[in-house]
Amino acid sequence: MPQDPFDWIDDRRARLESAGLLRSLRPRAAGSDAVDLAGNDYLGLTRHEEVTAAAGEAARRWGAGATGSRLVTGSTQLHAQLEEELAAFCGAESALVFSSGYAANLAAVTALTGPPGGGAPSLLVSDEANHASLIDGCRLSRAERAVVPHADPDAVAKTLAAHDGPALAVTDSVFSVDGDAAPLPALAAACRAHGAALLVDDAHGLGVLGDGGRGAVQAAGLAGAGDVVATVTLSKSLGSQGGAVLGPARVVEHLVSTARTFIFDTGLAPAAAGGALAALEVLRREPWRAARVRAVAAELHGTLTAAGLTAARPDAAVVSVHAPSPGAAVRWAADCRAAGLLVGCFRPPSVPDGISRLRLTARADLSDAQVARAVETILATAPEGA
Amino acid sequence: MPQDPFDWIDDRRARLESAGLLRSLRPRAAGSDAVDLAGNDYLGLTRHEEVTAAAGEAARRWGAGATGSRLVTGSTQLHAQLEEELAAFCGAESALVFSSGYAANLAAVTALTGPPGGGAPSLLVSDEANHASLIDGCRLSRAERAVVPHADPDAVAKTLAAHDGPALAVTDSVFSVDGDAAPLPALAAACRAHGAALLVDDAHGLGVLGDGGRGAVQAAGLAGAGDVVATVTLSKSLGSQGGAVLGPARVVEHLVSTARTFIFDTGLAPAAAGGALAALEVLRREPWRAARVRAVAAELHGTLTAAGLTAARPDAAVVSVHAPSPGAAVRWAADCRAAGLLVGCFRPPSVPDGISRLRLTARADLSDAQVARAVETILATAPEGA
Ligand SMILES: Cc1ncc(COP(=O)(O)O)c(C=O)c1O
Ligand SMILES: Cc1ncc(COP(=O)(O)O)c(C=O)c1O
Repeated sequence: MPQDPFDWIDDRRARLESAGLLRSLRPRAAGSDAVDLAGNDYLGLTRHEEVTAAAGEAARRWGAGATGSRLVTGSTQLHAQLEEELAAFCGAESALVFSSGYAANLAAVTALTGPPGGGAPSLLVSDEANHASLIDGCRLSRAERAVVPHADPDAVAKTLAAHDGPALAVTDSVFSVDGDAAPLPALAAACRAHGAALLVDDAHGLGVLGDGGRGAVQAAGLAGAGDVVATVTLSKSLGSQGGAVLGPARVVEHLVSTARTFIFDTGLAPAAAGGALAALEVLRREPWRAARVRAVAAELHGTLTAAGLTAARPDAAVVSVHAPSPGAAVRWAADCRAAGLLVGCFRPPSVPDGISRLRLTARADLSDAQVARAVETILATAPEGA
Repeated sequence: MPQDPFDWIDDRRARLESAGLLRSLRPRAAGSDAVDLAGNDYLGLTRHEEVTAAAGEAARRWGAGATGSRLVTGSTQLHAQLEEELAAFCGAESALVFSSGYAANLAAVTALTGPPGGGAPSLLVSDEANHASLIDGCRLSRAERAVVPHADPDAVAKTLAAHDGPALAVTDSVFSVDGDAAPLPALAAACRAHGAALLVDDAHGLGVLGDGGRGAVQAAGLAGAGDVVATVTLSKSLGSQGGAVLGPARVVEHLVSTARTFIFDTGLAPAAAGGALAALEVLRREPWRAARVRAVAAELHGTLTAAGLTAARPDAAVVSVHAPSPGAAVRWAADCRAAGLLVGCFRPPSVPDGISRLRLTARADLSDAQVARAVETILATAPEGA
């Protein structure tokens, strides 16, 4: 009699548990009054009345779903408008919207690379700290992959120099664990010197960096460049759901005809497209939001490090505070939560260097008093040795 | 001077164009009065007032976005309620909601398999006609892959018998191109005889097959089975966006801790969760919708074949009508569109057997008169030799 085919999960569960890696869901209630420094609603737009009203209006006008692939019935004029306005805002020639940032990254990496000899880039050069969706894209690609040390343009240049044929370098613009920015100008220069293309995941840059939140690619002077492609998500600064690829029109057209996560996926729900479009309009009108989120991050970093905690200077909205151990980090986050403050908690193996951290995200809509209270809570609950 | 790193796309474009594979987007206007036999809104719920109102209300109450990963801030009580009700409806022990059906499939395939010797299934047995998202999951998995002939339980049994170690068989429940159903009872028997687990993508079965639309897994008597996992999408019968994995509680818990497209993706937008939940409630109250969509499909098939067209008898909502050539299929679909009828069009290489087709999807909310007019249009525009 064969054993139950899922019995192996029980062993796996025990191993995850003893490694402290068992995770569980904690659904939140509506209208909680905890202060949220854990989510990625950087500009405070996800609950903005214009944004939620636009989401509801889009559902009413276009339906709750897109009804099909973008290539069949899933493209509405709302999707087209969102694509135009995203491209215009970020200074790109063209944009293509996906059902998630994850899907946009899978599409860009796989459709812009291929096996040797096919014409497309046959080498992927990927920063070791890149987001899971870029890594999965590299795994799905038929190109050769080279993982390079974190934020190291010289390593990228050397890897490109050693490769015979076209290549694509891939990097987050702002790394999600530590909140540090990639050296985009130097990476672009290294790529250009070797005729390689550059793909930048600007998930954490859009809305935070660049003029009025136009993103890290714009801040680096690379907006509209013919050799740079950016991906963004609609789920962080734009407070909604979805993702997009931004770049030269021929790149976007190529994705339409070839990217599997575009062709074989239902289009983004109209409510998400409408919400993101409204958020973009608010950001255009209120560019102070981008400056404010950076100021809040700087304030969090400044006061916490002045009080003796260890944290890298934030390049965008994410402030990463060192904890003395994984257990201490988990307890610290729980104590903050008990005191009405939500913070993220990163432990091995999700951290590159073995150092556990609290991950704080700044928000443009936090008042100075809220920021001060958050700092008080973090300090009051800080473990010995932090 | 290195060439522009995207010049290769121009050659690729020319090759796609000469192969007739260049695709372009055709954004639709709101309130078009074309009859839609191209989308996957099988039950006619995406524009149902309760569904769109629930989507809007969810955005208002919970925000336009989930704000973070399901493991951080992205789980709301609305997500939890949707998971409970989906599981209860389909007769599964537990459910986990993802941002898309594509992401749910990537998660289930990768998290339920692994390299040899690790305890998890080290062989994936995959039907050759499976959906792209299952195929990408197989490519991302570290298990060995065996692609078996379409709908062939004996081939599955043979492949399992030849493998030393645990295995996972993977199949669509209803295949999206031809609309034929997988032989689920025989597949489950083959898996059980060899101690293997079975993963069924019920994207096109939910809402259409089974008691009151409980899906193909329920129809096959496999709901709640300890060795079967199902995935569904919220973007077809439920008229919204998102996906879910349904199965034993330990499988779902395992995905929470290990599935990359769950952990590293922003949670489903509340509007999509709320819309899907409302659609599920309508379906519970109006089980006739599932019977009606099957009757419409049978009527389309019956009248079209009686008039001389070639189409396989539909097992669910999809009716696939043969066209004499790729060019004729494209023109046929365009002629239908010009006459106010939207139909899908499949050509090589998206078809398994080289036969181009019109793809018609039945809808529960079509009147008999609408169905009759659709049939008239299809017959009036049919090419010579169809
Ligand atoms: C750097 C980065 N890229 C991509 C994504 C994926 O975007 P989404 O959650 O919209 O799928 C995320 C976060 O979720 C991210 O942090
Ligand atoms: C069989 C099948 N599985 C999975 C999917 C993906 O679901 P979603 O579009 O919700 O991502 C689709 C269609 O898009 C499908 O047809």
